[in-house]
Amino acid sequence: MSRDEKIASILDEVLSRITPSDEEEMGMERVAKRLLERIDGFYDEYGVRGMLVGSAARKTWISGEHDIDLFILFPESTGRERLEDVGLLIAGSVLSDAERIEERYAEHPYLHGVVEGYGVDVVPCFDIRDASRIKSAVDRTPHHNNFVREEIAGLEGEVRLTKQFLKRARIYGSELKIHGFSGYLSELLIIHFKSFMNLIRDAGNWRPGKVIDIKGHGTHRHESPLVVVDPTDPGRNVAAALSLDNMCRFIDSARAFLDDPRIECFFKQERSPIGVREIKEILHRRGSTLIGIQFIAPDIVDDLLYPQLEKMERSINRLFEMHDFRVINTGSIVSERNVYIICELFDRELPAVKKHIGPPVWERTDAKRFKSKYQGKETLSHIYIKNGRYVVEIKRRHRRPTSLLQEELPRCGLGKDLRDTIREERFQIQSQEELLTTEDRTVRRFIHELLTHNDP
Amino acid sequence: MSRDEKIASILDEVLSRITPSDEEEMGMERVAKRLLERIDGFYDEYGVRGMLVGSAARKTWISGEHDIDLFILFPESTGRERLEDVGLLIAGSVLSDAERIEERYAEHPYLHGVVEGYGVDVVPCFDIRDASRIKSAVDRTPHHNNFVREEIAGLEGEVRLTKQFLKRARIYGSELKIHGFSGYLSELLIIHFKSFMNLIRDAGNWRPGKVIDIKGHGTHRHESPLVVVDPTDPGRNVAAALSLDNMCRFIDSARAFLDDPRIECFFKQERSPIGVREIKEILHRRGSTLIGIQFIAPDIVDDLLYPQLEKMERSINRLFEMHDFRVINTGSIVSERNVYIICELFDRELPAVKKHIGPPVWERTDAKRFKSKYQGKETLSHIYIKNGRYVVEIKRRHRRPTSLLQEELPRCGLGKDLRDTIREERFQIQSQEELLTTEDRTVRRFIHELLTHNDP
Repeated sequence: MSRDEKIASILDEVLSRITPSDEEEMGMERVAKRLLERIDGFYDEYGVRGMLVGSAARKTWISGEHDIDLFILFPESTGRERLEDVGLLIAGSVLSDAERIEERYAEHPYLHGVVEGYGVDVVPCFDIRDASRIKSAVDRTPHHNNFVREEIAGLEGEVRLTKQFLKRARIYGSELKIHGFSGYLSELLIIHFKSFMNLIRDAGNWRPGKVIDIKGHGTHRHESPLVVVDPTDPGRNVAAALSLDNMCRFIDSARAFLDDPRIECFFKQERSPIGVREIKEILHRRGSTLIGIQFIAPDIVDDLLYPQLEKMERSINRLFEMHDFRVINTGSIVSERNVYIICELFDRELPAVKKHIGPPVWERTDAKRFKSKYQGKETLSHIYIKNGRYVVEIKRRHRRPTSLLQEELPRCGLGKDLRDTIREERFQIQSQEELLTTEDRTVRRFIHELLTHNDP
Repeated sequence: MSRDEKIASILDEVLSRITPSDEEEMGMERVAKRLLERIDGFYDEYGVRGMLVGSAARKTWISGEHDIDLFILFPESTGRERLEDVGLLIAGSVLSDAERIEERYAEHPYLHGVVEGYGVDVVPCFDIRDASRIKSAVDRTPHHNNFVREEIAGLEGEVRLTKQFLKRARIYGSELKIHGFSGYLSELLIIHFKSFMNLIRDAGNWRPGKVIDIKGHGTHRHESPLVVVDPTDPGRNVAAALSLDNMCRFIDSARAFLDDPRIECFFKQERSPIGVREIKEILHRRGSTLIGIQFIAPDIVDDLLYPQLEKMERSINRLFEMHDFRVINTGSIVSERNVYIICELFDRELPAVKKHIGPPVWERTDAKRFKSKYQGKETLSHIYIKNGRYVVEIKRRHRRPTSLLQEELPRCGLGKDLRDTIREERFQIQSQEELLTTEDRTVRRFIHELLTHNDP
């Protein structure tokens, strides 16, 4: 079998697993159509019309996904307040027979509910002719929808392959938890490159600064590593949410598939659970030490929570560095509202001695202050002179990471929703022993990944 | 007793201890005169004349010192080779009844010998009228001698106080072992400031960049922290050998004496010997660890040896840092030709794991080389991506400082005379235990100082 034949057979196999069956498609269409008609029933009263958007509308969804995104398009002249009030009213009526209805927020409030097993979003927006003059971010969606529907016919399978490939690499999704490729971005890439394999071959040569401009109409310079100009808005970068590392992971995964095409590039292998002993052996081989901070996540959406966890991780890293602890790896995981921030460190304990660098000797006033502060005090050395400055060796306050975190974490820079939790000391320092004996398999697997960076 | 009275009484006490007695002075003069006459005996044959130089000539020596510096001044027209040949011949004759005669080298060879308990240098030089046009560095000495003799009368005691003060602070001597104040520099400072107390009061306000130009004739800018323009040569800085830290130590000692005038600012207190247990307790309090390198010093003069020891210390520091060992203090000591370089470290042992940062993901050729080098190899992590680069965690080669030094020291940058000793592995790594159980009291005291920076 030639390499091309091998690739073709893998892609066939992948498609056969991820393409929805006719029944699955018809089921989705039937529900979508019924809900859409409910929106259109409000046309006479409010001038609104319904639009099915997202992967359901483009037929680029992957078998097993059951998401339906419905937009209620209001005339541009509608007031914002009226749109919100009437929008929720219509959405409530559309979801009248749904389970688990929730009010959610993008720029406007919208409703989410479950209908016949489908997760349905009903989102009000303004119907604005020119996508570059929208009033709110969600107003773009109908334009995206129109553009993709016109261009995508015949390429749905290629989009599905792309999405599945991105999911496997854990870089699918533009939300702040992921910093990856959105569904719309995946579709645009396929519209541009025409096939999954063309995309993959091209991606192998990408570098930061790569620009893809399907319509050749881009107007702005962007700082993002990848720029994909929105065909419906020349000033906007559809790939703005993609992080440098996730762009690189895509480049790397693309090359890996080209070098050695395997079905595992699309699907995770079954993984056996990770035992405590296995992690202990890994730690022993590495000779490092673990410490964790655990607390209950505040009740906020992921797009608020994850950036604050990243900020907290950075603060903890800085805290460790400032106090001479060397960090090897850090990461955070949320498991059932339990947040764990876990750090792998060089040192279980630091020496007591710490150099304190004082002022230059020739700054007489500062010098006097420094000397009178430390002379005759309980220090670990006399005051001495090095590189023109006074130096004294003192007892370090925190020899162990536990004591450092317990005392200093509440004074760190933290996001607004985590600040109270930490300031009020509603957090637990978890020793290595405590982390290893956790019953939570998600946490155990996360620790394993943090230490081994094994195939995600 | 007022502060001024207290200072006056301390200085009186110091002077009474350091001023040579009349007998001592007469003894020195008698020997110097006799040897000088021997040089003058060669005037008819070679046109040479003798000159007594140095502190003996200026009567600025400190009781107990027994050094006599004699110069043989040759006419400027003499050839260099002839000066060297005849110079040694005359010197040999001058020292005909001396003990332990050695040939030593400055820019010319000269002789050193011991006559009636006095250490005598007999140095040939050219007699050059204009000090800025000298042929060799030693030719300056007669000019210095003339200048100081004309200016110093009545200030000899002030010079002695200055020298004793500098000795106590361990910053007396311009040799490369010390990087301090030469005798000539001390004399110039007193000629400029007229008294020890004036000097001390002024020094409290010195900062790097301080310039003292007695004759106001300086012609060059110098980078040195202290510039004292040579009254006999406007282009030369007499304080060129003084290091920043030793200048700062002088500033600091001067202020300390002004703040709290004490006889101990001139004389060391008796110190009891340092016990092993004392050092062990200090190390325990500090929580740090010691390691040393010991070898036999090559047979070279101090001015060649000490700069090479400093270079070796810097190389060892760099080596430790490159391999993630953190150095707290380092120093070197020569005790009876045994050289010890001793380092105080953070870590007795490092974790096995070491991050190896690879190329940026987008550099496809480098990326391929990196991945094929590490993929499937025995590493401590899978290859992963961070900040746009590949990273892999591998086993560090040296977890202990002993293994690092044993293997890498011979590859370090070393001065030419230490290179062979180290390359041929004629050195010993000394563990903390070995260092602490040394019988050598000098080494033990040195370790104590390295750890405590106690009053030098």
